[in-house]
Amino acid sequence: MRLMLLALLCLAACAQQPVAPPAGRASAQVLEASAPSDWRRLDPEDTIYLELASGRVVIELAPAFAPLHAQNIKALAREQYFDGLVILRSQDNYVVQWGDPAEDEKKARPIRSAKSSLPPEFAREATPDLPFSVLADGDVYAPEAGHSTGFPAARGNGKAWLAHCYGMLGVSRGNTADSGSGAGLYVVIGHSPRHLDRNITLAGRVVKGMELLSALPRGTGALGFYENPEQHVKVRALRVAADLPASQRTELELLRTDTATWTEYVDSRRWRREEWFLDKVGHVELCNVPLPVREKK
Amino acid sequence: MRLMLLALLCLAACAQQPVAPPAGRASAQVLEASAPSDWRRLDPEDTIYLELASGRVVIELAPAFAPLHAQNIKALAREQYFDGLVILRSQDNYVVQWGDPAEDEKKARPIRSAKSSLPPEFAREATPDLPFSVLADGDVYAPEAGHSTGFPAARGNGKAWLAHCYGMLGVSRGNTADSGSGAGLYVVIGHSPRHLDRNITLAGRVVKGMELLSALPRGTGALGFYENPEQHVKVRALRVAADLPASQRTELELLRTDTATWTEYVDSRRWRREEWFLDKVGHVELCNVPLPVREKK
Repeated sequence: MRLMLLALLCLAACAQQPVAPPAGRASAQVLEASAPSDWRRLDPEDTIYLELASGRVVIELAPAFAPLHAQNIKALAREQYFDGLVILRSQDNYVVQWGDPAEDEKKARPIRSAKSSLPPEFAREATPDLPFSVLADGDVYAPEAGHSTGFPAARGNGKAWLAHCYGMLGVSRGNTADSGSGAGLYVVIGHSPRHLDRNITLAGRVVKGMELLSALPRGTGALGFYENPEQHVKVRALRVAADLPASQRTELELLRTDTATWTEYVDSRRWRREEWFLDKVGHVELCNVPLPVREKK
Repeated sequence: MRLMLLALLCLAACAQQPVAPPAGRASAQVLEASAPSDWRRLDPEDTIYLELASGRVVIELAPAFAPLHAQNIKALAREQYFDGLVILRSQDNYVVQWGDPAEDEKKARPIRSAKSSLPPEFAREATPDLPFSVLADGDVYAPEAGHSTGFPAARGNGKAWLAHCYGMLGVSRGNTADSGSGAGLYVVIGHSPRHLDRNITLAGRVVKGMELLSALPRGTGALGFYENPEQHVKVRALRVAADLPASQRTELELLRTDTATWTEYVDSRRWRREEWFLDKVGHVELCNVPLPVREKK
């Protein structure tokens, strides 16, 4: 049944000769023509800064999908839990991960006011109030893919969840669902590992500074862990943007994902109207829709 | 019509509650149980080495899909065209590219015996003799996705083409289809840019040494070009493996993609039977099937 439907789908939907796209603009022109109201400011209360010697990684938290984890990551940041901890792992085509390098639990940094374990937030109810811009192109992993509250997401059977696209922030866990707290965090640096969706809590996404993580040397141990502690990259601090004076914040704007401009932008990623594209494509996959970010105007 | 079919597909095919996978083995066990005949040796005549100060990147060419380009890249290598040229570009979540840094055509390195332009090899005829292991999970970009002659590929309307998965080697071109020759080459280092499929010739794929490319500092110029020539990473040499003494070759074996073991391996990537996976997934997307590579036994 499933294979038959797939074949039917593709015979009907997948044009295989280069075809002319419907009239429209290319991505750069869509963004140029956007109105100020098509953009939103990062909320400093939902923004964290991972401060490395090489610079600042700006991460937007996703309280609409992971409210408990977003809150706990901020609580950890506010007790300065992460300061002086390290990037432990860089696995090629997968993730960079930071946290406490102590192998002996007795030497592990104590968590003071934050929680040390949380219920999983792998998916949430797809309630009517949750905005969701559906991607018409389908998805291999979920009944529906699209964007919600600025994040790549998926939906099905009454649930909605964030998708493991490039740059997403996740919460490390052990073998049990409630074994993550936010004390260990990872960022996707390779081809989007969508098989992790609904297996682990995603709590946000890098909006600036990805290259400070993605270009780190890969660890040579199993799973990309650094074998020698000297290879660890120190986390100078992890801070909630709201806790910094305004002058020290990184002011960014992100394209809203619930507007007509967003729909046009997605279409411009589906139909590649730039001269270079000889085949204008006509399809776009969820993680190939990068979220436009710009300096505050 | 298209949207209706997508909805139908997903209602029927996308299980949204964690379900138990059919009986089977996890990836590690599939590989452990494999027979020697499930593996193939790299053919030294179809293997090139990109030699950097940091080490060797081993690349398998794909003559079944890009015979003219594979041949010409070897011809360029054999006239030592690449030796002393540089990695010019590292664009985050996209590609690393190498070639001639000369901006003035008069100063460009001459191509001697190799061809300086070639007809495009964006797709080939899907002839009956071309092996193709279809992935039952569908694909956003093509009627069929799967693996052919060891490479991720797609198929439709009588054509077959390589897919822009992580690690694939492509041939830079200008705005015209025949403007590539292999004198400029790129490797995918981010989320697979499948919108490039059938727009540019893919000619192979990195099988070892990806981290020597993917962890390079990102260029700060437009499209990730290095703005300062001092940032260029020198290409010591690019060689055809067959031209080196056997003792200097990197001997690798790759899992064949046309066997029952391959089918079982793909299934083990679709159904994640490892204990850690609380949701066993049940789907796998083309570029999330990594090709197993091992040292020669």
